[in-house]
Amino acid sequence: MARSRIAVRGNLRSPSVSVAHLVLLLCVFRVADVYAESGYDAWLRYPRIDGAVRDRYASIPRRLMLAGDSPVLRTARDETVRGLSSLLGEPAVPITSRGSGSVIIMGLLDRIRMLVDDPGVPTQLRADGFWIGRVVTREGPALIVAGQNDRGVLYGAFALLRRIAAHADIAQLNEREEPAAPVRWINHWDNLDGTIERGYAGRSIFFDSGRVVDDLTRVRDYARLLASVGINGLTINNVNANAQVISDAFLPQLARVADTLRPWGIALSVSIDFSSPMRIGGLDTFDPLDARVISFWKGRVDAIYKAVPDLGGFVLKADSEGRLGPSAYGRTHADAANVIARALAPHNGAIFYRGFVYDHLMDWRNQKNDRARAAYDNFRKLDGQFDANVILQIKHGPIDFQVREPASPLFGALQKTNQAIELQITQEYLGQQRHVCFIVPMWKRVLDFDMQAKGTGTQVKSLVSGRVFGRRTGGFVGVSNVGRDTNWLGHDLAMSNLYGFGRLAWNPDLQSRQIADEWTKLTFSDTPQVVDTIAGMLLESWPTYENYTGPLGAGTLTDIIGVHYGPGIESSERNGWGQWHRSNGTGIGMDRTVATGTGFISQYSPAVAAVYESLTSTPDDLLLFFHHVPYTYKLRSGKTVIQHIYDSHYEGAQNAAGFVERWRRLEKFIDPERHASVLAKLEYQAGHAIVWRDAVNSWFQWISGVPDAMGRIGRSPGRVEAESMTLERFSTGAVIPWETASGAQAAICSAGGTCAARHRYQGTAGIYDIAVQYFVESDGAARYALSVGSRQVESWVADAQFGSNTPNGHTSTRRTAHRVTLAPGDEIRVEVSTMPPDGGAVDYIEIVPSDR
Amino acid sequence: MARSRIAVRGNLRSPSVSVAHLVLLLCVFRVADVYAESGYDAWLRYPRIDGAVRDRYASIPRRLMLAGDSPVLRTARDETVRGLSSLLGEPAVPITSRGSGSVIIMGLLDRIRMLVDDPGVPTQLRADGFWIGRVVTREGPALIVAGQNDRGVLYGAFALLRRIAAHADIAQLNEREEPAAPVRWINHWDNLDGTIERGYAGRSIFFDSGRVVDDLTRVRDYARLLASVGINGLTINNVNANAQVISDAFLPQLARVADTLRPWGIALSVSIDFSSPMRIGGLDTFDPLDARVISFWKGRVDAIYKAVPDLGGFVLKADSEGRLGPSAYGRTHADAANVIARALAPHNGAIFYRGFVYDHLMDWRNQKNDRARAAYDNFRKLDGQFDANVILQIKHGPIDFQVREPASPLFGALQKTNQAIELQITQEYLGQQRHVCFIVPMWKRVLDFDMQAKGTGTQVKSLVSGRVFGRRTGGFVGVSNVGRDTNWLGHDLAMSNLYGFGRLAWNPDLQSRQIADEWTKLTFSDTPQVVDTIAGMLLESWPTYENYTGPLGAGTLTDIIGVHYGPGIESSERNGWGQWHRSNGTGIGMDRTVATGTGFISQYSPAVAAVYESLTSTPDDLLLFFHHVPYTYKLRSGKTVIQHIYDSHYEGAQNAAGFVERWRRLEKFIDPERHASVLAKLEYQAGHAIVWRDAVNSWFQWISGVPDAMGRIGRSPGRVEAESMTLERFSTGAVIPWETASGAQAAICSAGGTCAARHRYQGTAGIYDIAVQYFVESDGAARYALSVGSRQVESWVADAQFGSNTPNGHTSTRRTAHRVTLAPGDEIRVEVSTMPPDGGAVDYIEIVPSDR
Repeated sequence: MARSRIAVRGNLRSPSVSVAHLVLLLCVFRVADVYAESGYDAWLRYPRIDGAVRDRYASIPRRLMLAGDSPVLRTARDETVRGLSSLLGEPAVPITSRGSGSVIIMGLLDRIRMLVDDPGVPTQLRADGFWIGRVVTREGPALIVAGQNDRGVLYGAFALLRRIAAHADIAQLNEREEPAAPVRWINHWDNLDGTIERGYAGRSIFFDSGRVVDDLTRVRDYARLLASVGINGLTINNVNANAQVISDAFLPQLARVADTLRPWGIALSVSIDFSSPMRIGGLDTFDPLDARVISFWKGRVDAIYKAVPDLGGFVLKADSEGRLGPSAYGRTHADAANVIARALAPHNGAIFYRGFVYDHLMDWRNQKNDRARAAYDNFRKLDGQFDANVILQIKHGPIDFQVREPASPLFGALQKTNQAIELQITQEYLGQQRHVCFIVPMWKRVLDFDMQAKGTGTQVKSLVSGRVFGRRTGGFVGVSNVGRDTNWLGHDLAMSNLYGFGRLAWNPDLQSRQIADEWTKLTFSDTPQVVDTIAGMLLESWPTYENYTGPLGAGTLTDIIGVHYGPGIESSERNGWGQWHRSNGTGIGMDRTVATGTGFISQYSPAVAAVYESLTSTPDDLLLFFHHVPYTYKLRSGKTVIQHIYDSHYEGAQNAAGFVERWRRLEKFIDPERHASVLAKLEYQAGHAIVWRDAVNSWFQWISGVPDAMGRIGRSPGRVEAESMTLERFSTGAVIPWETASGAQAAICSAGGTCAARHRYQGTAGIYDIAVQYFVESDGAARYALSVGSRQVESWVADAQFGSNTPNGHTSTRRTAHRVTLAPGDEIRVEVSTMPPDGGAVDYIEIVPSDR
Repeated sequence: MARSRIAVRGNLRSPSVSVAHLVLLLCVFRVADVYAESGYDAWLRYPRIDGAVRDRYASIPRRLMLAGDSPVLRTARDETVRGLSSLLGEPAVPITSRGSGSVIIMGLLDRIRMLVDDPGVPTQLRADGFWIGRVVTREGPALIVAGQNDRGVLYGAFALLRRIAAHADIAQLNEREEPAAPVRWINHWDNLDGTIERGYAGRSIFFDSGRVVDDLTRVRDYARLLASVGINGLTINNVNANAQVISDAFLPQLARVADTLRPWGIALSVSIDFSSPMRIGGLDTFDPLDARVISFWKGRVDAIYKAVPDLGGFVLKADSEGRLGPSAYGRTHADAANVIARALAPHNGAIFYRGFVYDHLMDWRNQKNDRARAAYDNFRKLDGQFDANVILQIKHGPIDFQVREPASPLFGALQKTNQAIELQITQEYLGQQRHVCFIVPMWKRVLDFDMQAKGTGTQVKSLVSGRVFGRRTGGFVGVSNVGRDTNWLGHDLAMSNLYGFGRLAWNPDLQSRQIADEWTKLTFSDTPQVVDTIAGMLLESWPTYENYTGPLGAGTLTDIIGVHYGPGIESSERNGWGQWHRSNGTGIGMDRTVATGTGFISQYSPAVAAVYESLTSTPDDLLLFFHHVPYTYKLRSGKTVIQHIYDSHYEGAQNAAGFVERWRRLEKFIDPERHASVLAKLEYQAGHAIVWRDAVNSWFQWISGVPDAMGRIGRSPGRVEAESMTLERFSTGAVIPWETASGAQAAICSAGGTCAARHRYQGTAGIYDIAVQYFVESDGAARYALSVGSRQVESWVADAQFGSNTPNGHTSTRRTAHRVTLAPGDEIRVEVSTMPPDGGAVDYIEIVPSDR
């Protein structure tokens, strides 16, 4: 056998290769072939290593022995076989007896220590931890993957493969890793009907039509991705939960999902509805102190654990955004959490109680009202009242995943309560996976922030892991709404956030750069130009997005009433949702000081509060989160706030345009499928960044009355408003909100015919790029064509879906025809052929000298 | 015969009354009975004069002789018979031979002078002029009504009746009246399908389903009203004209209308479509210099005059708001006007060419652009190029019937062109006849304004009448969109504007007070309390409306994009329509100066321009029309602009509320039908004034960042937002634009059920008025009920039509339950029962101590 494997290494077609091995190999390669560059395999592509690099791994044993047996251990073994075979281009082989020669031995630490007597093997590991190292045994050299538990072994296996796939040097392998915290969970906001709240990559992989899907292949492959970065819990349904999910009828379906996750070391969990005792329990109350309710929860939990013995527990959103909760009976959140916690405790289940509780009908006219206060105000007073298996799940900032928020003060305020930080992998407010926005640096800012909760050294990452106040559990929860799109999140680059979340949940001390490099190498290639470009873009992407959207901690200026995507500057004002930036004619920002504002700052420890209370010590990037200042207030840069807004938006859009060019230069290093797919998204992003830039700058120039010092706003070179072109069948209409269209208006083409807009070019002759800024009118399609004279230079179908059917900042989209020859007198014509019931709309065209 | 009439005077039942006379009397009284207090007879009610006042008219002859004969003369005679009989409660009788005794003799001046040799009779009169006086002839005393032409006689008859109806002293009757100008026309914006553009009182009295209505009774009675105030021309169809109106098929229908108008001395005219040569003429052009087009117009006009030999002429809107015009062929407005004028000239017809030409797709971002410039820029250069039978019809201000505009500079700029001033009787921007707004004082401001076009003494009224520059024709055109509502304009008090327009067109030197008094006496009663109250309210109504809507000449803050009714402060900004007030965070107003602004002011004569160019000499009430100033700019009153905005809106709404109380006090003096009808409108207006007040003040306080010195905004005592009440089935929704709802939000009740909002009253016990501010959701209906505990205190059906189907400043409506007893703990409940497909919406309730 050994020989035949060596023969295979040299020549795949060697007749000495057993048929079984050939099938295995072909299978591995076929899978790679089909999925390889669709993004489906994400960072687990295991591309064959060629040339000199492969020699680096010659010493890796190809024989692999499990010490012990369990579903998770078998997963670890099979993944290692798959990975090594694929990476090294020759089969690795599972064996059941040691024999002689080099071997990989995988198993629980205790078992390994019985087999291997080597002082390098650690004596113990924390839960889920692993050790990888080389030892020499009597039978020969061995590469050991030892875990504290089954999961640890699996994590070790993935860690080994990651090192190889990233072409790391493993000559001196001796690595001990232990997770920072026991809780490394993912939440999904999938509804039972298959839709996903805040999902941007297709329908649910878990549910359809009110039940779990029949084919759980995607769930299995998703579990593999999660396990590879250390995720150990998965909540599969929306926190705005359907009570049916814990009904008897549903339990067999949950069991099927749990069975699919179990081999990957992932515990199933579900979100529950606090009013379940009424909705599905036949009671007339859901008062958590009512004996019948207590009994309901005990009965339900016992039933669930019969179907899913290793259920992780529940997630509960109560008394928030219209969800029913304990306030209906004058009970506390602790009452609510504990009644369920006590039912779960005998089964070692936990309840994650969401701290995202606020009044979404707040009176916006009361300047003392402040949504940011809500989590602390609601939960601080309950510290010490929660049972040991309750984990308070706290969003990273005090508002709701905005582009820039300080750390939630609640992290520093709880000493006797388990905590988990809720991070959102889904880019709900960060471009919805149509824009690239690598969130790891943002998370790092919060995780590394020292709350000074007990002197210094009390970073958020230490608090949530339980270390600071000696809590037994706690950790990290990521909201990840992957969907049925082949590449899971819609944007190939968005997978860096899923990866990064897992890596940080395992080890929050990792640096953003390190994660970006690692992910790029695994996902694309370790070619220096590729790593430099992609990791560089990733690291710039959050500041870039922030630059062209919301400034200085003002809160995102996104349309928060609707789809949370495009600009809608006034959408956050004058309603009860509380995401106010309080911009008016004289200034901008929320005064949250103790002295004159909402007093939110008092929720921080005195040392932190002192920094934020003072205008001069507040960092510029959070200035408007904490203070209301005149537009003419001077930042540390010497710029006024208003000029900073203008400049940062031009810089951000400029950088987004640069992403396109930087990506283009990678063409020869990246497979055509993903290169083209990402390129299209980056081009779209560059166009939408201009929509953002112009919307925000136009609005603020209007309201502030302060002109841009550089005179750029409303004066884009080469721009011709559609409404000023010669229009056939188009009508001119206002766009709402006004700032989301250039000139506040568009040429509207109603459904049922073809409209044309003509412009006589009068500039100098040359080669130009002509951009058409148009609105995707509806959920259907319209065909656009751009012509110069009788030449059609570009045509496309507008059928994207932005969650909005009208011309606005969500649907505004740019298409550019490059290198078009123009001479004075040429007629430029934009034609829209509508496909009822959809219409179309054009904002403007822009003619600029081609830079290609 | 004489005896029998005297007997009738004493006793209507005298057997000596002839049957014919009895029938006549009964007929007069029956008509009065049926219509008297429906508003149908408007100011021509001729109510019987009783008591001592009647003695004043004992000397009026009851015998009436026509000197001459014509349809108009017969109308004059019949109207006099009708009027005297009704007013004096005894029949007046037409006679055909003089006989002896006192007599009224009516006829053309020349004829009268042949019959009557009295030095008091004038030797001549200007066209349409009349003389009324007493003479003594050989046969006895005579009261003479002499006209320069038939119309003059009719106007004299109405003048006589008006004096009697107003209980004026006519002992020394010797009045010579001549109109200020030959043109005293009314335009209608009625469409052939029976709808009316900017009509607020039902469908067209002229058209239905593409043709003239069969029953022209309303047209006849309308002509009577118009003739009574001296109107001599009537354009019956919309200036946005359907070309069919001059097609052969339509001519017999026009002839029927002309036949109906003719006895009232009113010339029919129609609005025409400049592209008619293409639309109905079978040509491929409408180029005014094309021989075929010239021929088309000649042929059409000749045909029309065959059907209507006394047609007054045409009205033409060209190259404006999407209407086709001469610019399509690079021709001038003079080319366009003259081609039609030359066809009309042989028939003595005139063409009214509208000066309302502007670019409604103007670039709002160019601070030098200014719609106000348009009329002058388009027409000044053509002075001298228009034929003698072209009349340029110029809106009174440079924009479009806004609540406060300066006089159009074009009036002073044309020396060789006939002019007519276009005044809008229809309250398009002035409350749409749901608000009382007596426009005569506004018109007077413009008519009396001295353009200093040729030194001083060149008031607009003198310019348009042709006197200043010796034009042969010119005058006044009023846009009056009466409809099929019984009282013609929907609001009984709105008829004062139709009356006032006629009176001013006849004599622009009349004072507003005089017109208001006269109209009130004729329409209601000469009881001093009635006259003082109603005329007082009328005179205050325009400043009141201005106070609670648009301040300091900023232009109305009305929603100009939609129905031109409720507030929509930003609607005029950022679009091509050009009604900009340029409010931003720092200031408000359009800079139209020559020095730094659009240069509009240069269109005035140097003396006028000097006044407007300087910030200090510009009158406050036009300040923001001419200048952009900071909100903190101090007015002559010492108040800042922003505080003036706040205060004037509170004052305006307060005064509107006062109208209700003042009107209530007239209850015993006014017939119940009209008292109730006007009361309902004034109550509605008072509620809508609060919507206006709160919208404008909230918006300006927001954008300016300057708080109201009196702290009133957003703090209405006793107001409870619906969204903060306990809601059943209601959902909370944003209202757009935000300033049109209190707190920017409403409780929305979707169609298909009943919604309830509950509030637990916690104030002191007492008697309160409870107002419900709600939105009329749609064109259908919803039933509202207000209860306190189990008592229903008010219920109503919301079925008004405001031209809008969503919650906003148009549809926001107040209903008040008066004198409700409340005690702490009482539950106040607002219930909306929807009638699909309509929903309902509630903004707030307001509980204030009852003032009744």
